[in-house]
Amino acid sequence: MVEFIVTPWEVKGKVDYKKLIEQFGLKELTPEILEKIKKYTKQLHFLLRRRIFFAHRDLDWLLAEFEKGNKFYLYTGRGPSGKTHIGHLIPWILTKWLQDKFDAKLYFQMTNDEKFLFKRELTLEKVDEFMYENMLDVIAIGFNPRKTKIIRDIQDISLLYPEALKVARHLTFSTVKAVFGFKESSNVGQIFFTCLQSVPAFIESVLRKRNVPCLIPLAVDQDPHFRITRDVAPKLGYYKPAIVHSKFLPSLKGIGEKMSSSEPETCVFTTDPPEQVEKKIMNAFTGGRDTAQEQRKYGGNPQICPVYYYYLFFFEQDDKKLKEIEESCKSGKTLCGECKRMLIEKINKFLKEHQRKREKARRIVNKFLLK
Amino acid sequence: MVEFIVTPWEVKGKVDYKKLIEQFGLKELTPEILEKIKKYTKQLHFLLRRRIFFAHRDLDWLLAEFEKGNKFYLYTGRGPSGKTHIGHLIPWILTKWLQDKFDAKLYFQMTNDEKFLFKRELTLEKVDEFMYENMLDVIAIGFNPRKTKIIRDIQDISLLYPEALKVARHLTFSTVKAVFGFKESSNVGQIFFTCLQSVPAFIESVLRKRNVPCLIPLAVDQDPHFRITRDVAPKLGYYKPAIVHSKFLPSLKGIGEKMSSSEPETCVFTTDPPEQVEKKIMNAFTGGRDTAQEQRKYGGNPQICPVYYYYLFFFEQDDKKLKEIEESCKSGKTLCGECKRMLIEKINKFLKEHQRKREKARRIVNKFLLK
Repeated sequence: MVEFIVTPWEVKGKVDYKKLIEQFGLKELTPEILEKIKKYTKQLHFLLRRRIFFAHRDLDWLLAEFEKGNKFYLYTGRGPSGKTHIGHLIPWILTKWLQDKFDAKLYFQMTNDEKFLFKRELTLEKVDEFMYENMLDVIAIGFNPRKTKIIRDIQDISLLYPEALKVARHLTFSTVKAVFGFKESSNVGQIFFTCLQSVPAFIESVLRKRNVPCLIPLAVDQDPHFRITRDVAPKLGYYKPAIVHSKFLPSLKGIGEKMSSSEPETCVFTTDPPEQVEKKIMNAFTGGRDTAQEQRKYGGNPQICPVYYYYLFFFEQDDKKLKEIEESCKSGKTLCGECKRMLIEKINKFLKEHQRKREKARRIVNKFLLK
Repeated sequence: MVEFIVTPWEVKGKVDYKKLIEQFGLKELTPEILEKIKKYTKQLHFLLRRRIFFAHRDLDWLLAEFEKGNKFYLYTGRGPSGKTHIGHLIPWILTKWLQDKFDAKLYFQMTNDEKFLFKRELTLEKVDEFMYENMLDVIAIGFNPRKTKIIRDIQDISLLYPEALKVARHLTFSTVKAVFGFKESSNVGQIFFTCLQSVPAFIESVLRKRNVPCLIPLAVDQDPHFRITRDVAPKLGYYKPAIVHSKFLPSLKGIGEKMSSSEPETCVFTTDPPEQVEKKIMNAFTGGRDTAQEQRKYGGNPQICPVYYYYLFFFEQDDKKLKEIEESCKSGKTLCGECKRMLIEKINKFLKEHQRKREKARRIVNKFLLK
């Protein structure tokens, strides 16, 4: 029985991350490797401490190279098929921290071509509208404009295409079929696309004409693309990119439910006004009991509660306070209504600031573009 | 039994053009349609008169549109995987004539990406060296620099890519498999490539923001690409391109033998010096008899003679003189040696002039480029 599905275009069911590590052939993010990171960063980011980033590929190698003075660059991205929601921000926030701590250059890829190829209902114009809006969110995160370049696939295709052709020569239909589950009825653009997503994983080596290590923080569903890159890059003379993988912020409808930009009630968008946030959170599924009385008596279950995961993933970064939230839920001390109201306040506080930065970002978008 | 194979990447065996018309679903170039062309061109080009261009798609429609005042543009191209040989010039020569007679704009596509994807031994640098050399030949043909644009796929990818994505959405692996015979082991670039070859067939409509008819003169092996274009273009709101198809100049080794840039003895390159031409033609297979005596008695057979086809396709454009060559072969009056020496003289006369124009072309390449 398939309990869950994780591909770049579909995440379904309750994801068992331990099983995913096995299925994908990842390495667990162990205390040992976190210690190695801490050597350079002094503190550990809460997304690492809490194992929201839970797995990696070749992070040990990357850190050993860094130790030798061989600095790495960062690469992450976004497929602009809709508004940005809080879940999208998770890998970006760690990426920003890594940029600061390791003084790393970042390529941020906007796969507007991908979204056009995979979403029949979208026009090129619509994808680019989403892309612009998503870029505002990326910039609002606070990336260093002197060290960050946004690659827009279609607009920057002249940079990517010659390198994508080199990847393509090493990649057969039977491989992309095995990796992504493509069928004979898949369109030929979908089949070729992964080549474009590979390129930023070695573009710095192309441009600098010497091998530069690359670290890709991503949500784990994107890993299959880079399994291909890691297979092909050495054949082109480049390093395999290292990767750190994050879990998914659950849907507000419940763990294992699909979170989707096309179902606004399942997630909080970065552009939601306070009333919208309030409504969404108040309607969210929780780990609470059927009645207040029962909850006082038996306590709630944070492990199945999206509200708790919102604290865990983002809105309570202090471990002690998070523990308190968890405990007063389990002991029945805090009921869901109160807990939700506290979260709404935190989300709206964050969004007020984020939306201000987002508006300011409009003026500096050009600084982040390649051309 | 397969007697011959014609695909964009392989031509093998003695091609039966009547059967090919059936197989590919083409229309024969009839006296009626040639008369319609003649209405605008006064004379008929020898390549049309002799049915070296032998088939078409929608040429009647194109001429009817022209009659209504709806002018067409031309599109042809070259895959730059080696030197230009005489056979390559055939479609270009008719294209040049059509440009002059119909005052038509021309897009000439250089598919450097294709050749990189299909020829494992080529680097991008090597393909672009061939491309530059091939462009000199194109320009030497005499295309109007004010009405001709050379599209270099990789260099001009930013123009082509967004449109290629639109084609890709309408094209599945199972279609390219059926049309081109791709396998699971085909690389993903090969599978996507045909989308790039489609784009110039409607690019003028994209750029002018109104529908412009397109006529593609090509060697018949390229037809499969445009079967796809003709299927997809209407779905994007564009006209189906019209096509005129040429036969292949045979190999110097004999009809049905493969002519290949990688086997220099099978063809005459545009850059061959006179001694090289002499050697190649003197070594060519002919329709002659085993001995001079037998030939005087029984005559030769022009129908199986590459030397005769060189006259037919290019080097004797006067129908009366061509008939004389044919007759004095069949009657045994002219022996192969004499016939070959006459051809060598004609080829070298042409090449001397072509090579001079080719050198002059170096100074004006930029006029033909998009950017």
